[in-house]
Amino acid sequence: MNLIVLCDDDISGNTAVITGRRLQHVLTYIKPQAGDTLRAGMLNGAMGECRVSEISRSRLVLELNLDTEPPKPLPATLILAMPRPKVLNRVLQHASAMGIKRIYIIKTWRVEKSYWETPLLEEDSLREQLIAGLEQGRDTLLPEIQIRRFFKPFAEDELPEIMRGSVGMVFHPVGEVCPRGIDYAVTMAIGPEGGFIPYEIDALQKIGFRSVSLGERILRVETAVPYICGRLF
Amino acid sequence: MNLIVLCDDDISGNTAVITGRRLQHVLTYIKPQAGDTLRAGMLNGAMGECRVSEISRSRLVLELNLDTEPPKPLPATLILAMPRPKVLNRVLQHASAMGIKRIYIIKTWRVEKSYWETPLLEEDSLREQLIAGLEQGRDTLLPEIQIRRFFKPFAEDELPEIMRGSVGMVFHPVGEVCPRGIDYAVTMAIGPEGGFIPYEIDALQKIGFRSVSLGERILRVETAVPYICGRLF
Repeated sequence: MNLIVLCDDDISGNTAVITGRRLQHVLTYIKPQAGDTLRAGMLNGAMGECRVSEISRSRLVLELNLDTEPPKPLPATLILAMPRPKVLNRVLQHASAMGIKRIYIIKTWRVEKSYWETPLLEEDSLREQLIAGLEQGRDTLLPEIQIRRFFKPFAEDELPEIMRGSVGMVFHPVGEVCPRGIDYAVTMAIGPEGGFIPYEIDALQKIGFRSVSLGERILRVETAVPYICGRLF
Repeated sequence: MNLIVLCDDDISGNTAVITGRRLQHVLTYIKPQAGDTLRAGMLNGAMGECRVSEISRSRLVLELNLDTEPPKPLPATLILAMPRPKVLNRVLQHASAMGIKRIYIIKTWRVEKSYWETPLLEEDSLREQLIAGLEQGRDTLLPEIQIRRFFKPFAEDELPEIMRGSVGMVFHPVGEVCPRGIDYAVTMAIGPEGGFIPYEIDALQKIGFRSVSLGERILRVETAVPYICGRLF
């Protein structure tokens, strides 16, 4: 945890009172003393170095000093075929830590049906992963996340609007070489284990997606997402 | 599994007989029929599309047709402060799938002592993760992996030779901007949670490592390794 993410309920006047999971983490790993500073930020707001005015096993009190804007978002929207639920959690943390702010989890042909039954897709669980990513990446802007269980209406009716103003890239073993160091926004579509089926690739290409390849090697989604972000931006 | 990695024991004349874990995976996920082809490769050797001459619940027989070289290694050596053991497994799989061929797992000041007791550091376990990475990345060249439990003699006596012919980069929040799309070899040092301590950074800089930063965001090791590989190569 490189940043304590604060919500309205934590705030009282010009101080924040922290208990529960975040307190436990601070006590276990950071072990600050009164007078030390810790980096904290308001969810979707400013951040800064805040002085510890009290620390005990029951609470941490911080004097708020939120004078810094959160880092710039990555200009990327992630369209992610639902992976194995545990992998989903890790990918969401990666994406949030790197600064991706818009994520769609979608059904594609090769997504295992059983994956949709996981409680990890519940709103609270998704939010927990995204906040863990913010705490790691020192950011406060919570990514938006949406779930779409039908590929066709999503790709045909919704995706053209989502990708407006960006370049659509579908990552696939056959395609143009992935560009690097770009200065434009990207909507990146990442398939499931086994990839998109030809119909899905066609549907994405029809609305303007380019097929982009990472070369001979096939990377897992949890390797591919950070690899692609490092390469593109 | 995008490639079946074969070892000498699997081979009999011009065929390979596959049982156990790899057979189970093929039966569960790939479900081929006799006459189909599957991609296979000899560990540290050639690879190719091989015809299935027999498939049953007890064995898979492939007609060998190994006519292709494995993909080019990534020109990177990874010096990795020992992470949480479960994270280690994932990082090794990432690194192997991306084509890193030389890995050193090292002790640094902020590595938790308990991490060294894990059975995941045993040779068979390390090898299993690296082979899983090859199966994913469609490669046959097994990375070499070494464990070094003392930072000082490693950095002073061994690392100068290891990094010869490459640019050393230690990833740290304070440093020059990470270059991109380079055409030279890199020895990359990645710290533990909490980072390297100043003494360690100094020791690395003394032997020629550059301090390189990924920007304002702090990434976990398992995000950082693929992110850096995507950015550099």
